[in-house]
Amino acid sequence: MKRSLISILIILVMSASLSVAQSGIKEDFKPASSNQPGKEYPMVNSEGRVRAQISASDAKYVQLDIGGVKYDLVKDENGVWTGESAPQDVGFHYYQLNIDGASVPDPGSMVYFGACRWGSGIEVPSDDQDIFALKNVPHGHLHEIFFPSASTNLSRRAFVYTPPCYTKELSKRYPVLYLQHGYCENEFSWPMQGYANLIMDNLIAEGKAKPFIIVMTYGMTNDIPRGGLRNFDIKPFQTVLIDELIPYIDTNFRTLPNQDNRAMAGLSMGAFETRLVTLNRPDVFSYYGLFSGGVYNPDDLKDHKNLKLVFHSCGSKERPDGVKNAAAELQKAGIKAVSYISEGTAHEFHTWRRSLYQMAKSLFK
Amino acid sequence: MKRSLISILIILVMSASLSVAQSGIKEDFKPASSNQPGKEYPMVNSEGRVRAQISASDAKYVQLDIGGVKYDLVKDENGVWTGESAPQDVGFHYYQLNIDGASVPDPGSMVYFGACRWGSGIEVPSDDQDIFALKNVPHGHLHEIFFPSASTNLSRRAFVYTPPCYTKELSKRYPVLYLQHGYCENEFSWPMQGYANLIMDNLIAEGKAKPFIIVMTYGMTNDIPRGGLRNFDIKPFQTVLIDELIPYIDTNFRTLPNQDNRAMAGLSMGAFETRLVTLNRPDVFSYYGLFSGGVYNPDDLKDHKNLKLVFHSCGSKERPDGVKNAAAELQKAGIKAVSYISEGTAHEFHTWRRSLYQMAKSLFK
Repeated sequence: MKRSLISILIILVMSASLSVAQSGIKEDFKPASSNQPGKEYPMVNSEGRVRAQISASDAKYVQLDIGGVKYDLVKDENGVWTGESAPQDVGFHYYQLNIDGASVPDPGSMVYFGACRWGSGIEVPSDDQDIFALKNVPHGHLHEIFFPSASTNLSRRAFVYTPPCYTKELSKRYPVLYLQHGYCENEFSWPMQGYANLIMDNLIAEGKAKPFIIVMTYGMTNDIPRGGLRNFDIKPFQTVLIDELIPYIDTNFRTLPNQDNRAMAGLSMGAFETRLVTLNRPDVFSYYGLFSGGVYNPDDLKDHKNLKLVFHSCGSKERPDGVKNAAAELQKAGIKAVSYISEGTAHEFHTWRRSLYQMAKSLFK
Repeated sequence: MKRSLISILIILVMSASLSVAQSGIKEDFKPASSNQPGKEYPMVNSEGRVRAQISASDAKYVQLDIGGVKYDLVKDENGVWTGESAPQDVGFHYYQLNIDGASVPDPGSMVYFGACRWGSGIEVPSDDQDIFALKNVPHGHLHEIFFPSASTNLSRRAFVYTPPCYTKELSKRYPVLYLQHGYCENEFSWPMQGYANLIMDNLIAEGKAKPFIIVMTYGMTNDIPRGGLRNFDIKPFQTVLIDELIPYIDTNFRTLPNQDNRAMAGLSMGAFETRLVTLNRPDVFSYYGLFSGGVYNPDDLKDHKNLKLVFHSCGSKERPDGVKNAAAELQKAGIKAVSYISEGTAHEFHTWRRSLYQMAKSLFK
């Protein structure tokens, strides 16, 4: 009798927690802003949970693969599978579906280049998503260009953002930021999931940034960086950037073609590249930005006579102390340095959108 | 005895044809040019067969869904599925994979907008693919712009191709072609699978076309054209095009802003739109192009005083006689009209790339 009472109590307690767990998912899901036009799924709720859905009548299992975790979806009587992830950080995340062992893009999502592939991505709403919203303000142009590269024997692609006023005042010339993507991303990553162009349009419309040009190209000279960065040599990319791309930009766009009006920044591997290039060539850029990737020490920069600003940043879920300390050390050495910590984000694109937003406000002033 | 001899003969004949059928697939498959960087599959052989491959260890079936037919793939001991389609026409085809009932993009393919979705596409090599190859020639810029549209209360996207010389001779002004995509495609379709920019770069490099600007925007004002074209009203798009986009282009690009230097063309639904817009507004364009979509009759054009050229085209697997007859009728009526038939292709993008290539040679001359 006592044992069965305890059993009943245990069952009651278990059912109760199960019900809390179930009702614990807030039912305020909305279609993600990163979806294909007209697609209802995937959805996101206010906790940052992602709800995926796909019809797969004959599948044994379907999983949502996001943030390194695979979440099981559940099949209904119509063969439609639905399920949710744990809460994700605000911002942008790459993900995929797994259908009976096949890793495939979600047909509901737009397609982004990251994780070494064109695949699905999802936007988890953030309080400051306004910084990259498409608003009714004057818009710059994003140019897809192909520039000749003798060193790689290719016409190489770059994206070039020109500010709204670029097409109005035809005699005016502009400073340039060279902005690099991360490992297993490419030249599409900053304009697409990074919204570099819309961030600039909005900053300029609010008078918070000086109008400047941004140039974004592929940061490697081989197509796919197999085997990681261990054997990475900056020289081939440095040649493309300094000897081929910059002269092309200075010839084909109305730039201010001098060191005072040139910045370089990058995220993750792009920060690593920015550091190497600026240390090898202290004569080319005057503003340096490292987003989530390495720091400068005062000794690194002692011969950088024309240096105007060093910008370090990362997410609060990365190693913010390293970034803050580096800026403090540089300041002590008399170098103008700032740090920025993106609250509540990790090594992901929302950290870098915010970093661009912050750095842009300080550039060329 | 006689019966079993016949049976043996039948079996022998059947095995022989089976073996012909199997060895009939030419084993000269190569990775498609439309693949994601570094991806080996899908492949195409010299017959135009598509070979798809995907790892799906627990799937019951996997199919390649192309050209309205689903082809079964076969699983090997490692859980990798492989299989081929029948020969496809040269050029570009949308397709998808079906995994246990789920229709999904092929993770091996680049992603294109067509068939009302961002999904997989495959390039079947053609003898004239050189017309859209990325070559070591001067390249124009492809601008992504957002133009204000009061009538739809949106900033609307367009792609604008400017020719290579546009950034060199800063006082020169250029004619403009407004170029529309088809049903269930969008403003990305002409620059991506249409390679409009590379076609122009190559034509200009060979001195075969006069340099001009091309403007490509979304040809509808609602996001997804549900319910087909039955209730399609050209007026909202015509307002966007004539009253909003053209003035924006003429303000922000160095155009020759007059009827003599303005053309409109489109494919399929875009041809339908071109016909409606040019008939409603005979005062705006001087060159009309219909690719695989309708024809003009001489009566249609009797008040078109500034008309300089009518271009009709389609694939040889569509209705070439209609196109040829329409041009002949217009010529009889004293209107300068030409027709072009794309050999060996149907209602698909290679027909339209070739049409643009042909029409561009005659524009603004």
